[in-house]
Formats: sequence, C-alpha cells, structure tokens
Amino acid sequence: MNDKDQFMRKAIDLSIKNIEKGGGPFGAVIVKEGKIIATGTNRVTHENDPTSHAEVNVIREAARILGTFDLSDCEIYTSCEPCPMCLGAIYWARISSVYYGNDKYDAAQIGFDDQFIYEEIDRPLQKRKVPAIQIMNEEAIEAFSLWDKKTDKTPY
Amino acid sequence: MNDKDQFMRKAIDLSIKNIEKGGGPFGAVIVKEGKIIATGTNRVTHENDPTSHAEVNVIREAARILGTFDLSDCEIYTSCEPCPMCLGAIYWARISSVYYGNDKYDAAQIGFDDQFIYEEIDRPLQKRKVPAIQIMNEEAIEAFSLWDKKTDKTPY
Repeated sequence: MNDKDQFMRKAIDLSIKNIEKGGGPFGAVIVKEGKIIATGTNRVTHENDPTSHAEVNVIREAARILGTFDLSDCEIYTSCEPCPMCLGAIYWARISSVYYGNDKYDAAQIGFDDQFIYEEIDRPLQKRKVPAIQIMNEEAIEAFSLWDKKTDKTPY
Repeated sequence: MNDKDQFMRKAIDLSIKNIEKGGGPFGAVIVKEGKIIATGTNRVTHENDPTSHAEVNVIREAARILGTFDLSDCEIYTSCEPCPMCLGAIYWARISSVYYGNDKYDAAQIGFDDQFIYEEIDRPLQKRKVPAIQIMNEEAIEAFSLWDKKTDKTPY
C-alpha cells in the first residue's frame, strides 16, 4: 500500500467508524510532509452545526495545530468529493491537492445531494431559488474604505 | 428605517467594529421571526481559522442557540455577498433569504477575491488548478453502503 492509499484508507476508516458513532459517512485527513497531522468527521447532527462537514472540521483542526490559516503545504484526503462549502474552505486554506474516494454521484445516491448548491452557485443572483437581495450598499462600503486605508492590517 | 435596513445596519456596524478589533471588514446577523438571534464577524486571522467567515460563524452560533442544524425559518443579513464557502453553508442550513450590502466586485477591489474559487467550482475536476484526484472508490463506497442499510440514522 503506497502513502496515498494509506492516507485515504485512514479517511475511509474514519467515515465508517463515524457511522457507528451515529454520524454521517464522511471522514477526512490532512497530510503535511508525508504525515497525517489532523483528522475530521461529519458531525452535523451530533453538534447541530450545518457547517460541521469532515473537510471543514479537519481544516479547522489542522490550522489550530499549525497555528496558521495558510495550509498551502498540506494535502487533504477525503472519503467523498467535497461539496461547494468544503471546496471553498479548501481554497481559502490554500491546500495544494485534493484526493477523494466517493464522488458526488455516489453521495447523491444515498441522499446527500450537492447538486442543488452547485446549480445555485452557477445561477446569477437574481435567478437563484433562494433569494439574494442587495441593500444598503452605500452604507456597507464604509467598512471596505476603512479597511483599505488601514495600514496595520493582517491581509490574507 | 424599516426592519430589513435595521438588520443590515447591525451587520454593517459589526463589519466596521471588527476592523477596529483587528479582524476583516465583514459582519452578519441571523434573523428569526423579526428578531436578531445571532451575530458573527470574520475571525480568520484572530483564530487562525480559514473557515472563520462572518456567515459561517453566525450560522454556527444560530444553530447552537436554536439547537438545530435546520435554519429554514431564518434569514441572513451579511455586510458582503457570501463567498462560495459561505453560500454552501447557507444552503446546507436551509436559510430562506440572503440580504447583502457590498458585492463580490466591491470585495475584489480591496483584495478579497472570490473569483478564483467561483471559476474553480465551475471547472470539471480534471481541469482545476488545484488537482482533485479520485482514488480507492471501491473501498470508500463501503461507508455509503453501510449508511444506506442503517435503519436508525438521522438523515439531513
């Protein structure tokens, strides 16, 4: 078994054990310099947290352990293709590579359907099924002006 | 000032105060039955957590307070158009409406550019700049079979 397979095997083991614990069938690990540094599972129903997907959790844990929000020297191994939320988290964390086991079609077959979210993101704001309405732009822009002028900020 | 403007005003106030606290210029509130039940700000650099956007944080907080991962009777007011990660979180939480102040073009002008993420999500997996590679599907699918057969699961 090569390294990649070992890391994915761990993500799969987590996904299976998580079912026994009453969670959803998803697990993920983050690898840095050839070693697993963090693990995560889906805990949406346990924690009553809709953002508690395996990938979000493992990213939070790896960032906590490394003390940085920049995981550009890390890879993620996830038992299932990331949903748009998790893909966004992976990109914000600047993770360098994604390995996944099941794909979104496998996930849809057991009732986890990301397709609606993918379709919504693709639609112009005005045509989305969940209404997205812009208000008070003139007031909101004040924060951006202040940020732009600030000289001692931490950019990311 | 009508209710919608009041809720957005609060989100904007949070975004401005967050800069003074050393955070990014983003704030959000969640409203249920005409009342603000939770607030959130961007805390990426404070918490070294790349997922700590205002919308993710306010969703986590509202879900914690209400004791449910289903926020379908809630609206979100955010000082800036949600990025793909936050949009995903909004959809998983089943929030009914999104109001935003600044848009993604305003955000790009001060260096917060979601466009790369939107483009990546649109690309087929094989053509993404961040490689996404499927391995060990045969092993990974075992978790989905177990989930599918489980009779006492909490679906979501």
